[in-house]
Amino acid sequence: MTQTNNNMTVNPDLAMERAKCNFNVLEVTHIFDGGERNTLQRKKIEDVALNSGASKDALGEEHMSPKEKYENAVRKSCIYATMMKNELAELSGLESFGVSSPVIRRTADAFFKEVSPFLLHLGMFVPTIMGQCTPEQQSYWLPRALDMQIIGTYAQTELGHGTFIRGLETTATYDPETEEFVLHSPTLSSYKWWAGGLGKTVNYCIVVAQLYTKGECHGTHPFIVQIRDEDTHVPLPGIKVGEIGPKMGFNTADNGFLGFDHYRIPREHMLMKNAQVLKDGTYVKVARHGKLTYGTMVFVRVVLVNEVAFNLAKASTIAVRYSAIRRQSKPKPDEVEPQILDYVTQQHKLFIAIATAHALQLCSTWLWESFSAVLAQMKGGNTDTLPEFHALSSCLKAISTSDSAHLIEQCRHACGGHGYMISSGIPNLYNFVSATRTYEGDYTVLLLQTARFLVKAYEQAEAKKPLTPTVSYLAHAFSGSRATWDNSPDGIIRSFQALAAGKTAVCVTNMRKRMRAGLSQVDAWEMSTIQLVAAAEAHCRAVIADTYRKEIVRLTANSSPNVKVVMDQLTTLYLYYWALERTGDLLMFTSVSQKDLVDLQIAYEELLLKIRPNAVGLVDAFDLRDELLHSTLGSYDGRVYERLMEEALKSPMNKEPVSDAYSKYLRPMMKGKL
Amino acid sequence: MTQTNNNMTVNPDLAMERAKCNFNVLEVTHIFDGGERNTLQRKKIEDVALNSGASKDALGEEHMSPKEKYENAVRKSCIYATMMKNELAELSGLESFGVSSPVIRRTADAFFKEVSPFLLHLGMFVPTIMGQCTPEQQSYWLPRALDMQIIGTYAQTELGHGTFIRGLETTATYDPETEEFVLHSPTLSSYKWWAGGLGKTVNYCIVVAQLYTKGECHGTHPFIVQIRDEDTHVPLPGIKVGEIGPKMGFNTADNGFLGFDHYRIPREHMLMKNAQVLKDGTYVKVARHGKLTYGTMVFVRVVLVNEVAFNLAKASTIAVRYSAIRRQSKPKPDEVEPQILDYVTQQHKLFIAIATAHALQLCSTWLWESFSAVLAQMKGGNTDTLPEFHALSSCLKAISTSDSAHLIEQCRHACGGHGYMISSGIPNLYNFVSATRTYEGDYTVLLLQTARFLVKAYEQAEAKKPLTPTVSYLAHAFSGSRATWDNSPDGIIRSFQALAAGKTAVCVTNMRKRMRAGLSQVDAWEMSTIQLVAAAEAHCRAVIADTYRKEIVRLTANSSPNVKVVMDQLTTLYLYYWALERTGDLLMFTSVSQKDLVDLQIAYEELLLKIRPNAVGLVDAFDLRDELLHSTLGSYDGRVYERLMEEALKSPMNKEPVSDAYSKYLRPMMKGKL
Repeated sequence: MTQTNNNMTVNPDLAMERAKCNFNVLEVTHIFDGGERNTLQRKKIEDVALNSGASKDALGEEHMSPKEKYENAVRKSCIYATMMKNELAELSGLESFGVSSPVIRRTADAFFKEVSPFLLHLGMFVPTIMGQCTPEQQSYWLPRALDMQIIGTYAQTELGHGTFIRGLETTATYDPETEEFVLHSPTLSSYKWWAGGLGKTVNYCIVVAQLYTKGECHGTHPFIVQIRDEDTHVPLPGIKVGEIGPKMGFNTADNGFLGFDHYRIPREHMLMKNAQVLKDGTYVKVARHGKLTYGTMVFVRVVLVNEVAFNLAKASTIAVRYSAIRRQSKPKPDEVEPQILDYVTQQHKLFIAIATAHALQLCSTWLWESFSAVLAQMKGGNTDTLPEFHALSSCLKAISTSDSAHLIEQCRHACGGHGYMISSGIPNLYNFVSATRTYEGDYTVLLLQTARFLVKAYEQAEAKKPLTPTVSYLAHAFSGSRATWDNSPDGIIRSFQALAAGKTAVCVTNMRKRMRAGLSQVDAWEMSTIQLVAAAEAHCRAVIADTYRKEIVRLTANSSPNVKVVMDQLTTLYLYYWALERTGDLLMFTSVSQKDLVDLQIAYEELLLKIRPNAVGLVDAFDLRDELLHSTLGSYDGRVYERLMEEALKSPMNKEPVSDAYSKYLRPMMKGKL
Repeated sequence: MTQTNNNMTVNPDLAMERAKCNFNVLEVTHIFDGGERNTLQRKKIEDVALNSGASKDALGEEHMSPKEKYENAVRKSCIYATMMKNELAELSGLESFGVSSPVIRRTADAFFKEVSPFLLHLGMFVPTIMGQCTPEQQSYWLPRALDMQIIGTYAQTELGHGTFIRGLETTATYDPETEEFVLHSPTLSSYKWWAGGLGKTVNYCIVVAQLYTKGECHGTHPFIVQIRDEDTHVPLPGIKVGEIGPKMGFNTADNGFLGFDHYRIPREHMLMKNAQVLKDGTYVKVARHGKLTYGTMVFVRVVLVNEVAFNLAKASTIAVRYSAIRRQSKPKPDEVEPQILDYVTQQHKLFIAIATAHALQLCSTWLWESFSAVLAQMKGGNTDTLPEFHALSSCLKAISTSDSAHLIEQCRHACGGHGYMISSGIPNLYNFVSATRTYEGDYTVLLLQTARFLVKAYEQAEAKKPLTPTVSYLAHAFSGSRATWDNSPDGIIRSFQALAAGKTAVCVTNMRKRMRAGLSQVDAWEMSTIQLVAAAEAHCRAVIADTYRKEIVRLTANSSPNVKVVMDQLTTLYLYYWALERTGDLLMFTSVSQKDLVDLQIAYEELLLKIRPNAVGLVDAFDLRDELLHSTLGSYDGRVYERLMEEALKSPMNKEPVSDAYSKYLRPMMKGKL
């Protein structure tokens, strides 16, 4: 399947794995693409984008300096953007998230091992123009931005402020005399910092600044700011802009800094959909922009959840295929060395990665579809479920990025030493996903936001008020008895809910106790934050487990029997795995016994063995072309050792038999002449 | 303290933290240096090695390509090696591990953000000559190696084989006619792969190969092999050698590959201390080299445990200092933004890192001292305790590297976005420590070795036979009742032991059940490996907790009261933290109640608050000079934002206002001319 090259020589172990796979791989591919039609269209897009070979580098970026990496990424971004405009635009009308279509992103991942310097142009600059400009502003900016006559980014975070947006220091002070805003960076810590593409690429930028007019501060607002000359690309007077230096990943994205020295922009460059400053300096609030911005935020998080699921799919594909090829040790002296995939500890590391990639992808789609329905309601004025979606998207973003980063590392560990090679592809995946754990909302901060919602919902349940769907289980927290353990999938999901309810109840009890002992509400909350984070995690785990299970049942309703079986095995695996990771909570908040847990462990081990024969088939079903994997260990043909050696021989260090460092440094020292 | 520069401007928040620290920082420094005399000597060495500024780069390595990084590292290695020979050699006679003295390593860490290409010369080549050569061989090779007239490395791992040494494929076939060994690489997978310095630096190499003589294979043996011309450095005929390509870390170490095409070496180049091949090809085994090689292995692991502890100390220093400077959010509207170190979730992430750095450093020293005593016994012929030390060093290596890697990432997460900058220093620490989790024994493999020992010990306990000290607690597994929970430090340590015993018992029970059901012993073991790994982890945790506590009590016997208090708080923190991470096991194997655990959580939270005022003092006590930290976020003076900007401005990408990529690619695309 997947690769159509019939002349390919496939590693015999991999070929054997494919022969013994007992389900229809393509059927599973269709499930996760959202139907056969989508699969066909995706493949067409991938053919157009990748078959020319334009995504490939003559010299791998891993051999370059950061500066060379950047220049190479710009080169490819321009090719890719042109391709998007010409060939791909009309092909990409898929049922998905529009500009950030996962399908389009797949092809981009083939071009960029890290990311494109244009990432925030399409990802933030254009959406902000669409979301925060008046119609007149849009008609001016949008065509130029979409045609890439101008390239922009989004600069909010400052050197000294990230999470706490109200603390931003950059000022935009309105001057009615000239009808301009004066942008200024009063301190070093007020410099904008981190925006992707800002360093060297973009000539425009959305800048978030504290708006002052008539001597009064109205909080942060967005402005569109030209920072470089449209012809020469030289930074304009009053602008200090540059690149922030090397990072763990994202080194092709020229993240930048930006400072203003009383830099003037026209009044009309404030994005005025939600608030305006009139010519005379009068501030007018147009919309309740607090609630409306939820939309973009939830959207960005949905995309992130989808993205980390996709990267986890890559890591598990690499690690499972490699584990089918790699052989090690001789537990039985008379037999050949087993494939490492036969070791139960290896299965324990890898199969949860496959299941999690499935779970998160389905959660991301489910969240988007549910949220779209909510947005439709909102147009009718009903904003009741917004807090629930905010809470849900917060914890899903936190847990999905954290779980994925952890599991990608687990996949790397499962590849032993070779996983440490950049050419394995896994280090880049980790560096990328690891960043998503922090940006667009730090893990701990987001879970505390969810916890705040949980505690409120708990208080509503206590007062016997109605609850929104994802927290309706909290009502059972007041039954007075422990949840009954039952090891069926639905039983485990109910236990996960009981556990989230129990942990929330403990937090509330502790906070009330602390307040009775004299702490303020703020301090009592603060002292309980470790447990609140844990309660939010438990809530999120229950939601993921429930959603994953329900979606699989729904999506496999018409599947062939063996597909049903293997999909059921993976959802069960996810439930067993997390139940066994949370034995303490289960013992505290459900009726589970020590014997139940010992039995569950055995059942888990036996489940691993059942999944084992289909493991390669399962990762094949992700249908990831070699161009996307960038991996010596994970390619479809399994030529692992050949590729490792081929890649090594490409290293510029191997161009000459003797390094220049020998005559310069080594020889003099060895001959005692240094 | 620490820095002696009196003109230094220190960030006021850091200055305030230092002012409120209530214990004598220097006293704690002395504890972990092993006494005041050692501290003074260490500082002298650091002054000699670092005050000249030779460790600093004009352009940071993070801006270079891998090839440039390597050449720069060779340059500095030569400076450093010369310095070692001349100034440092006589200064370094410290009470420590000799060549791998942690003190010497500290100064090396200032020179190399990753590692020196000479790492394995002193770390493996020289020790192997010392350990495996006959006296005559030593007198020939050792002086040349120590004087660095020749540089070597150690090549064991092959492309297709790491863990399973018996599976190595490289052959060394004795030819009695010429009295030579013929080294050969029969397959691609038999190529040596990974040895540090092998790619471009070394001209000699210890090669581990399957020895064939008189048509018989005698298993793997070490050979010393010249691979490059001593004058021209050109690889010799029959040798294929090169660099393996970029890795997550260690990019300055030119890890290499090496293949042989019927390459001949003199018979005398077999290292003949433990086995010999006579001129006529007769194989003679000299010593029981199985047991003797334990020595080097345990030694290497002791060094690794010490090394990861040291790197964790660096990460916690960086993250704690930054957390004292960074301010965020306004939980109380009328107060200024708090230092993020005031957030309980932040303390939860960081203080365990400090305690773990202490615990692992003390465990490493304790292991070395206990093992040295054992070695002395061994000379008297007593090898009874060797298996215990093997098991102990295995699990300590696995858990210390894994815990440290995890906690270093936790420190990075605690620094938010800025932790993702290479200039924070933390990504390099992670990349380094993350590798140590795999090399010299993979995590899972090592824990299974410990588990094998545990199961044997359990069976001995069952048969009422005597047990060695670290597993004597297994005797209680047969008392028939759960261990009594008691939240004193000693009580928690006993619980950890009960938990390791309980988990081992479950494994044994399950294995026996599986064998009764018809599985072979090998298969029953294999099916239980997930639980066996967990049992070994529990055993190791109990050993670390016990050792940490006992060593601190011993080392602070004469300390001032406040030092005693804060050291006691940290050991207690370690115990509470891990008890709360293992609630499920505690509920299963001890008498702990749900209420006990809720109380323990509260006690843990209150303990964090008690440690909070001394946090900066505690990391200051690691006494890590800025040159060692390589960190914009962690420097002693706390000039965080200034340094971030200074480093950014050094980026070669900021040398020109407009990147070459603009005229080449961007402009044509934006003007529609691509």
